[in-house]
Amino acid sequence: MLTVAYDGTNYCGWQLQPNGETIEGVLNRCLSELMKEPVEVIGASRTDSGVHAMGNVAVFDTDSPIPADKISYALNRSLPEDIRIRKSQEVAPAFHPRHCDSHKTYEYRIYCAAFPMPTKRLYSHFTYVPLDVNLMSQAARYLIGTHDFQSFCSAGAQVETTVRRIDSIKVWAEHGRDDGEDREIVIRVTGGGFLYNMVRIIAGTLMEVGRGHIQPQELERILEARNRQAAGPTAPACGLTLMGIAYADGDLKADI
Amino acid sequence: MLTVAYDGTNYCGWQLQPNGETIEGVLNRCLSELMKEPVEVIGASRTDSGVHAMGNVAVFDTDSPIPADKISYALNRSLPEDIRIRKSQEVAPAFHPRHCDSHKTYEYRIYCAAFPMPTKRLYSHFTYVPLDVNLMSQAARYLIGTHDFQSFCSAGAQVETTVRRIDSIKVWAEHGRDDGEDREIVIRVTGGGFLYNMVRIIAGTLMEVGRGHIQPQELERILEARNRQAAGPTAPACGLTLMGIAYADGDLKADI
Repeated sequence: MLTVAYDGTNYCGWQLQPNGETIEGVLNRCLSELMKEPVEVIGASRTDSGVHAMGNVAVFDTDSPIPADKISYALNRSLPEDIRIRKSQEVAPAFHPRHCDSHKTYEYRIYCAAFPMPTKRLYSHFTYVPLDVNLMSQAARYLIGTHDFQSFCSAGAQVETTVRRIDSIKVWAEHGRDDGEDREIVIRVTGGGFLYNMVRIIAGTLMEVGRGHIQPQELERILEARNRQAAGPTAPACGLTLMGIAYADGDLKADI
Repeated sequence: MLTVAYDGTNYCGWQLQPNGETIEGVLNRCLSELMKEPVEVIGASRTDSGVHAMGNVAVFDTDSPIPADKISYALNRSLPEDIRIRKSQEVAPAFHPRHCDSHKTYEYRIYCAAFPMPTKRLYSHFTYVPLDVNLMSQAARYLIGTHDFQSFCSAGAQVETTVRRIDSIKVWAEHGRDDGEDREIVIRVTGGGFLYNMVRIIAGTLMEVGRGHIQPQELERILEARNRQAAGPTAPACGLTLMGIAYADGDLKADI
């Protein structure tokens, strides 16, 4: 099991694509070379193009004699610098990173200022619209718990159920500097699994709340609608980072 | 006067180069187009290749009728997204951004962890060597005040004097996450002007202190030596960001 961090800027997402470089594609290629046998990883979260990760998870089978905990070091030597293995460990052969019970934590970052900041442009979504963090925080509370999140799921997702569990959502502002007016709003969500674009739709909806277009208590109605049209827009990919994944088995944790 | 922010990753520094794109070159080109006359900016800090800025300063003369405070908006439309004008204002014709009394603030960031973090690689210098922030902070205090900083100046600099004034240096650690072991050490220096590579040599020397190779009190001896060989190595460019410049005239401030 690999704990994988990456800057998603230059990739067409996690999942193998016929045209375009993906995180999965690079991992398969570099691992196959290192292991001297064809390797295909299974990823925990198939993040979209432009989404980043500090702790995604990938597993693979191998007959290689390289000790599990040394694979991270060996693999990092051949990986491009925008992908890094932060940990490698042996897991039970039956372990599947998407079928085992887990908590995933995502952060969505919004940079609020009069002008975009070049050094933040790849990892934060910029807006010059003033946002009320307290309103966003109040609205977020309605999403905590087990709900049908169909309103927060992009069309095209093939899932048996749109019921998911959110354990916590925190919304706060980080000030750039003591005397600055710019700030970064962070939405941190932890849950037992997420639908397609779910965190980005939550972020887009909370931004609508922050600017006063949606009242916090309307989140209840939006959930009940079970209709994508009821929620706000899908916020851009660059603001999203998969922070880590913790599995029910406490030893298995991809976290920074 | 323009307050200029940029991601220095893809530029050969500020100053015009015959081969290679520079911040000054891009500004001159975009401004000349916008003003419909040849424009040449004068920059406050001629940052090196790979160094970033949140608040560098550039001035230029123009006969254009565009109101000074609107130039930022107009210019941002033609600039690449890794350069942004955060403010534009009229200043006295005699104002020269390098010859007027000012305070510049730089930050040097060091990401300390077992493995590099891809999303930090462009804006922080990575090290897996453990650093003692308290020792670095103690050592930094010896540099505050007016000193001959020849030991902290790269060869090749043509300056009349290597005496400079540092008003404050703060060193602190920012933790990545509540439960994470990784952290970012920040060195923030404010002073009345800096020699060539001075902040990067200070950062490299403080890193040597942090790992125990130099004792804090040795900074006194290093200053007295007036010899580049006495100080530590020049830390890499990517960790350095010019945060802002404040001029003695309180209205002139390029700060975030």
